Amino acid sequence: MAKYTIGLDYGTDSVRSLLVDVETGEEVASAVFHYPRWEKGMYCDAPVNRFRQHPGDYLEGLEFTIVEALKQAPAGVAENVVGISVDTTGSTPVAVDEKGTPLSLTPGFEENPNAMFVLWKDHTAVKEAEEINALAKKWDIDFTKFEGGIYSSEWFWAKLLHVIREDAGVFRAAYSWVEHCDWIPAILTGNTNPKTLKRSRCAAGHKAMWHEAFGGLPSEEFLTALDPMLAGLKDRLYKETFTCDVSAGTLTSEWAEKLGLSTDVVVGVGAFDAHLGAVGAEIEPYYLSKVMGTSTCDMLIAPMEEVGDKLVNGICGQVDGSIVPGMMGLEAGQSAFGDIYAWFKRVLEWPLKNILAESELLDEVTKQKLINETSDKIIAKLSEEAAKIPIDESGIVALDWMNGRRTPDANQNLKGAIAGLNLGSDAPRIFRALVEATAFGSKAINDRFIAEGVRIDGVIALGGVAKKSPLVMQIVADVLDMPIKVARSEQACALGSAMAAAVAAGVYSSTAEAQKNMGGGIETEYHPIPENVEKYKALYAKYKKFGKFIEFEY
Amino acid sequence: MAKYTIGLDYGTDSVRSLLVDVETGEEVASAVFHYPRWEKGMYCDAPVNRFRQHPGDYLEGLEFTIVEALKQAPAGVAENVVGISVDTTGSTPVAVDEKGTPLSLTPGFEENPNAMFVLWKDHTAVKEAEEINALAKKWDIDFTKFEGGIYSSEWFWAKLLHVIREDAGVFRAAYSWVEHCDWIPAILTGNTNPKTLKRSRCAAGHKAMWHEAFGGLPSEEFLTALDPMLAGLKDRLYKETFTCDVSAGTLTSEWAEKLGLSTDVVVGVGAFDAHLGAVGAEIEPYYLSKVMGTSTCDMLIAPMEEVGDKLVNGICGQVDGSIVPGMMGLEAGQSAFGDIYAWFKRVLEWPLKNILAESELLDEVTKQKLINETSDKIIAKLSEEAAKIPIDESGIVALDWMNGRRTPDANQNLKGAIAGLNLGSDAPRIFRALVEATAFGSKAINDRFIAEGVRIDGVIALGGVAKKSPLVMQIVADVLDMPIKVARSEQACALGSAMAAAVAAGVYSSTAEAQKNMGGGIETEYHPIPENVEKYKALYAKYKKFGKFIEFEY
Repeated sequence: MAKYTIGLDYGTDSVRSLLVDVETGEEVASAVFHYPRWEKGMYCDAPVNRFRQHPGDYLEGLEFTIVEALKQAPAGVAENVVGISVDTTGSTPVAVDEKGTPLSLTPGFEENPNAMFVLWKDHTAVKEAEEINALAKKWDIDFTKFEGGIYSSEWFWAKLLHVIREDAGVFRAAYSWVEHCDWIPAILTGNTNPKTLKRSRCAAGHKAMWHEAFGGLPSEEFLTALDPMLAGLKDRLYKETFTCDVSAGTLTSEWAEKLGLSTDVVVGVGAFDAHLGAVGAEIEPYYLSKVMGTSTCDMLIAPMEEVGDKLVNGICGQVDGSIVPGMMGLEAGQSAFGDIYAWFKRVLEWPLKNILAESELLDEVTKQKLINETSDKIIAKLSEEAAKIPIDESGIVALDWMNGRRTPDANQNLKGAIAGLNLGSDAPRIFRALVEATAFGSKAINDRFIAEGVRIDGVIALGGVAKKSPLVMQIVADVLDMPIKVARSEQACALGSAMAAAVAAGVYSSTAEAQKNMGGGIETEYHPIPENVEKYKALYAKYKKFGKFIEFEY
Repeated sequence: MAKYTIGLDYGTDSVRSLLVDVETGEEVASAVFHYPRWEKGMYCDAPVNRFRQHPGDYLEGLEFTIVEALKQAPAGVAENVVGISVDTTGSTPVAVDEKGTPLSLTPGFEENPNAMFVLWKDHTAVKEAEEINALAKKWDIDFTKFEGGIYSSEWFWAKLLHVIREDAGVFRAAYSWVEHCDWIPAILTGNTNPKTLKRSRCAAGHKAMWHEAFGGLPSEEFLTALDPMLAGLKDRLYKETFTCDVSAGTLTSEWAEKLGLSTDVVVGVGAFDAHLGAVGAEIEPYYLSKVMGTSTCDMLIAPMEEVGDKLVNGICGQVDGSIVPGMMGLEAGQSAFGDIYAWFKRVLEWPLKNILAESELLDEVTKQKLINETSDKIIAKLSEEAAKIPIDESGIVALDWMNGRRTPDANQNLKGAIAGLNLGSDAPRIFRALVEATAFGSKAINDRFIAEGVRIDGVIALGGVAKKSPLVMQIVADVLDMPIKVARSEQACALGSAMAAAVAAGVYSSTAEAQKNMGGGIETEYHPIPENVEKYKALYAKYKKFGKFIEFEY
């Protein structure tokens, strides 16, 4: 009888399970659960970029998606599930008590956003990230150096520091802090003790300044210099970290029963969604795996002996084993990608949602239908029209920093810009320039890797934009002057988790072996068009020049 | 019995007559005629900025609007009309035969766009303007110096040169060329002979490099160096020019009959619409009269003895008597003002006109109604929302060069830009930044006048935007740090023409006297708010810095 693993992929808005045949890679069943509290906007304050998630959303999704997928699967499958692995967004830490229970699940903190998971894209800690950077720059050891040299407000310590400053009560009540990707395996295996639960190398190394060279987390002196309230916390966090090929334990009887699985099921150590997405999309050495969605996460693996501890400046992380155990994992990314298209869509929707919505010509139901119908078609129609516009015809050049810049050289204070507008600059022309800007942002990252001595042989793309937009993909291929393979799996992150589970459960001895057997292969390949490549060189030079002005002189 | 004059105002889309009581200034009757061929887009090619108008549109409008206004007027008024003056757009020249008949009214040229009036906003002659500038810069006399030192594609010689290059047949068939504002009085008085018809100082001085110091038009050597085909044309144009207080003659019996007026009616020498608009809005020395519409025309008059022949650099013209006879007329302007708001409206309308328009949820009639209703409200609703946004809150700064820059320092190659965008930059925030950009463009003009030693004591605003948008007017007052009076007359150009007619007909001995008796006064006054003035100083500095980069380094 075949064996199966379950990959569980916690995204920003929903969690998805994927039940996979470990021998053939066949995706047997899948289920999705949208976070109900999150969907209502609870605990969030979008205008100030406060994004929090309630642990209940995660727990309910955990149970629902696995039970639901097993329901869809043929009889006998549940009995043959051998492993579960989890990927989540990150850094998405939560304050926990001594038992590892998120404070928001304990009395007195039920409605407190600071006692919730602080979602990756929460930007309330911009000031605290600046503090960390300021201190890191004058400290004898630069603890940020393996994280690109610039600490982000999206990361672990900045978020903790922000809670200290904003809500000391929560911070004092917290015994420790746990990343989302560590908490789910902890719950499933029953080992929620913050001092002993298995911590992900990926989260620790990329977001918490953990590194073997530092003997673990940053020194007590550094942390207490940031804030005296951090004193002693280090001892209640962790020293050791684990890659995703390691087992975190087996299912507790309680969860085995809830899910309808055996207590023999191995639960792998968790990792971040993008990283396991890269695994699912069959990342290989020197191929940049680009998760292209609202933002991008660009990952590259290289043999330790070739990259080793050589620092790659200006990217956002390099951690031994963070993507594929045994390989150096290098991470970069763009703070906004599809989000820029979505922003422009929102701008264009404004008359629909603010004027047409008030019209008395139609009844409410028809009006809402019409608004939704129109709104839903905006990106597709813009893409269709933008595809007809010759490169460089519009003269518009944009900067893709509408959500700051993650890499190269993180700077969250940067903003987007559009130049070259005239009275004939219509919506498709502006849209095309925004797409080109996101491609130029990708090129700046590739250039940096290469300048730092890390070659790139090609790109493997995954994520919503990679799957859905041939316009964007062709432009990126032309701008990068590099072929791009699009991974076939619709659920690369969940598939990567299922692969990791297969390794953690001992079905395969390495990630590469799991990929070889379970991988879905390539769906499409985009090849750069030489004529376009040449034209984009000139536009890219304008992008760089414009960016330099906005960054340094404006 | 009272006396009356008729002001005839030829705008871009329509012509309007205004019948005014010369003693009280009472606006007795008025009529509008929309150019029928123009409305169908005939002879035009918008994507390449080719805009031509057929003489028939003008002639039909001439007859219709005067006859119609007289119909509305009480009995006895027609008999007491003593003068007609005309203002038109410009430079809007047409190729004519020996009798002064536009070629498009002669056999073989009926449908030829190059035989039509080349409308002010036609930009087909960009290359030719560059040629003129290149030659002017190396010539011993700079013939462009009284036109701001930079010749525009919107002006007389560039347009002629473009016709030579594009359609030599038309050029060869033309005996001479006549401006729209000179052709109408020529027609009405029967003196259409190109060599003797009275030419407007305003058109000649601002657009054709005519100046007394040059002995008239540029030298034969200069013109033939531009193109040998220009040889001899100068002699078939003019040497002398006339201000709008001069009579061009009286009505021919044919036109007197057509219009129902006496052959004693004096027809004044024509002028440009903005200039007579400034007269109608009661321009006074050192008050900048700002016609704020799709673009702006900013006019200032100063006593000859105070400004004289001192050159004011970087504005677009200074001509003795071009606005008010006897005063130095100085002209500047922004290439796009309301046009920038209209551009943004078009961008926002895109989903309505390209997606919603295709919806099958509604019948065509309702759909069209809904689109129009929504579209018509965009600017008003954007203004309402933008007014609530605190200055500097959005961080967006834009450049108002979407149609190039007319002044200071004309540069039609410049383009607009928007910086400081983030994912929260919504349509009202962008709109507010665009409004601020147009105000900054106004400030740059004021700064230039002052830097060149021409003081500005205040602003008199007229035109559609001045009348309709308190948001824009308050922002302009705050940015300029100067009070702005809005002229009361709804038809300042036509009223100015009626005033000019009263002077030409001898009712008044000066423009100032006509203004005193016929002027409509002030409707509203906007005062700068000190707190806003301070905030805008910082934003204006950003605008200048951004502009400098885009102009010189991008």
